[in-house]
Amino acid sequence: MTLIRQLSTAAADFQTEFERLRHWSAETDAAIEGRVAEILADVQQRGDAAVLEYTNRFDRLSAASVAALEITQAELQAALAAIPAAQRDALQAAAKRVRAYHERQLEASGRSWSYRDEDGNLLGQKVTPLDRVGIYVPGGKAAYPSSVLMNAIPAHVAGVPEIIMVVPTPDGVRNPLVLAAAAVAGVHRVFTVGGAQAVAALAYGTATIPRVDKITGPGNAYVASAKKHVFGQVGIDMIAGPSEILVIADGTTPPDWVAMDLFSQAEHDELAQSILLSPDADFLAAVQASMERLLPTLPREAVIRASLQGRGALIHTRSMEEACEISNSIAPEHLEISAAEPARWEPLLRHAGAIFMGAYTSESLGDYCAGPNHVLPTASTARFSSPLGVYDFQKRSSLIEVSEQGAQVLGGIASTLAHGEGLQAHARAAELRLKG
Amino acid sequence: MTLIRQLSTAAADFQTEFERLRHWSAETDAAIEGRVAEILADVQQRGDAAVLEYTNRFDRLSAASVAALEITQAELQAALAAIPAAQRDALQAAAKRVRAYHERQLEASGRSWSYRDEDGNLLGQKVTPLDRVGIYVPGGKAAYPSSVLMNAIPAHVAGVPEIIMVVPTPDGVRNPLVLAAAAVAGVHRVFTVGGAQAVAALAYGTATIPRVDKITGPGNAYVASAKKHVFGQVGIDMIAGPSEILVIADGTTPPDWVAMDLFSQAEHDELAQSILLSPDADFLAAVQASMERLLPTLPREAVIRASLQGRGALIHTRSMEEACEISNSIAPEHLEISAAEPARWEPLLRHAGAIFMGAYTSESLGDYCAGPNHVLPTASTARFSSPLGVYDFQKRSSLIEVSEQGAQVLGGIASTLAHGEGLQAHARAAELRLKG
Repeated sequence: MTLIRQLSTAAADFQTEFERLRHWSAETDAAIEGRVAEILADVQQRGDAAVLEYTNRFDRLSAASVAALEITQAELQAALAAIPAAQRDALQAAAKRVRAYHERQLEASGRSWSYRDEDGNLLGQKVTPLDRVGIYVPGGKAAYPSSVLMNAIPAHVAGVPEIIMVVPTPDGVRNPLVLAAAAVAGVHRVFTVGGAQAVAALAYGTATIPRVDKITGPGNAYVASAKKHVFGQVGIDMIAGPSEILVIADGTTPPDWVAMDLFSQAEHDELAQSILLSPDADFLAAVQASMERLLPTLPREAVIRASLQGRGALIHTRSMEEACEISNSIAPEHLEISAAEPARWEPLLRHAGAIFMGAYTSESLGDYCAGPNHVLPTASTARFSSPLGVYDFQKRSSLIEVSEQGAQVLGGIASTLAHGEGLQAHARAAELRLKG
Repeated sequence: MTLIRQLSTAAADFQTEFERLRHWSAETDAAIEGRVAEILADVQQRGDAAVLEYTNRFDRLSAASVAALEITQAELQAALAAIPAAQRDALQAAAKRVRAYHERQLEASGRSWSYRDEDGNLLGQKVTPLDRVGIYVPGGKAAYPSSVLMNAIPAHVAGVPEIIMVVPTPDGVRNPLVLAAAAVAGVHRVFTVGGAQAVAALAYGTATIPRVDKITGPGNAYVASAKKHVFGQVGIDMIAGPSEILVIADGTTPPDWVAMDLFSQAEHDELAQSILLSPDADFLAAVQASMERLLPTLPREAVIRASLQGRGALIHTRSMEEACEISNSIAPEHLEISAAEPARWEPLLRHAGAIFMGAYTSESLGDYCAGPNHVLPTASTARFSSPLGVYDFQKRSSLIEVSEQGAQVLGGIASTLAHGEGLQAHARAAELRLKG
């Protein structure tokens, strides 16, 4: 079996093959959903007692209380002090850059604004942080300290006064890098609770774990189902699908670099999708050769191979413009323009979570430390949604102050429209403000 | 039975009574959900044929094709020309103000931005409109032309190139004001289709009705359930609960004005909630007297009475500060500060869909024509969500261009963190960009 399929937009069956390649649907497992609904209802009713039971059972712990599951700030600081200096420096450098970027984001789009119109009416929007947010951090092998930074720092920059992190610790094993990242990111409280019971505790609150206003962060199928369930009760971020990279290459980037970028997506899991588009057939062949040569050198070879064979593709396009159009139809999570003139192609690209421009901009630099968030819309949702950002931890309230003069102008309009809708009290409320 | 309950924060049972008052939960009707799932699956599979069948059956039509259900631009313009001049002028004046406000919103928070850091790396966010959106407009008696303006104009200002409106026309009855509003708001295409079948057509696309990227607008329980189902496939706005007003009064506003403002919310439906908070007991009594006197003069008396008796309250507080704290715990959709110094209290108010400041600012002026959007978060979701706005019709893509110099700085950080997470391909992709 070849490592990765080759398609050409000039082939008669391209559209069919392309759609088959793209096919993915979120599995909804009725058994999981039923179990999650039970856990949510139980935590809502019994609070701490239920959280403690599920946590002790599922994570094989023997905690005496939910309070005993809290990790203190001193323990977080101790974790930070105990990791190797290189890791500590890297975490702090990454956090500094992520913070700087999100502070720019706050300045650019997250400030209150208002104006007065010609009648002296004040109109505007007040932007305020959420009171309290919860960050779900997966435990075990797929524990990513970088995700702690990417979720907590935008909340911090938004001004959220209380950031609660939950992270399961199966068999009591704590990931020191995750705890160190929580210290660096300024997380306020950490509970070693996971699964649907953690989501329930954050959504409803218990005696020990405070109720939050929004829950962000990735998790397994139970966590995803629980987040969907509590949506409306609290805010949630997107439910993430498998990770994706799409590279548009003009043939000027070293083939090894592009091969490794495709691998770095594929190594996440077997369902991850890595696609390369190029009008240069020789370059596609060179990248394929690089992939075959480099793959055996990687520890996660098996995962990468399964991902590439199952969902990867090298696609020969007629032109760079056609590659951009195909990319728009995919709306990829990560989009690399690996080309000599990325600024020439960027305006053609309408939908993507993040756009990585130029040969030096490997996706992995963006994942960790360039500054922008690595929590990005997957599964074509970049058509209508955005990277996690400061705005996810803020909300807006409209501000309206109508002057006496303004009420005379607006009253007539409102009265006419309200009568047209059969809402007479609306009309009368406007009319009462009119001077006789 | 008294018209509206009176509570006092000084009473021993206040907290209990207050929680009882606030209790509301979104009913999920399993029968409706099952029926909706069937309709969605059927439209996804059979497209136009299914949409046509459901529409003809549920709305008692006999259309020959889905194409025959489209209302042309000429028909929209004819509707606008045919309504009374006062209504046409009012629609156009309201649209002009709503457009001006949302243009300010675009300027304040909806523009792309970027910067270069000290290593010459470019970082930023590109803000782009959605390609195509769908607006659901209810038919029949609860058809609100103002909602057409409030949904379509922000999409237009965001730059969405194609706005598709769906509106059911039971028995073929078209609401001329709704069509006129569509003409004024610049809706691109209108189909007289409603219910879950309309949501399905917009979410999946059919041969005749194009697939959209986001669906906004209110609807009945079938529509709400359908929107929840397709969420993820397309974007949706919030699922709205009953409408709410909370008035904080210092006693300086004419009691009749406040009474009518409370009515104007209560007239929406029996589940709507109207609450008045004041530290002035005499003022509360005066408002109650106004309500009893004014209510019999209103055509929607029965609905208002049911709403006030079921869910309304006049609450005597110890102070204006306490009133603000109670308001924060409610996070109301509409919040009036009917006081002599609204700017004194506004900073204390953290959660609300819209804040109406001063005696002249009746909620109804904001509903129709002040400029801000009247689609607002209900059921305490103002804790974490915002009014409908230009930002709902835009999405963001991160922009990252790492310079050769930047790759040297970032590569080491990314490599260290990637190795810490066991993602060696990520590390290698960063390392390949390091100069030897």
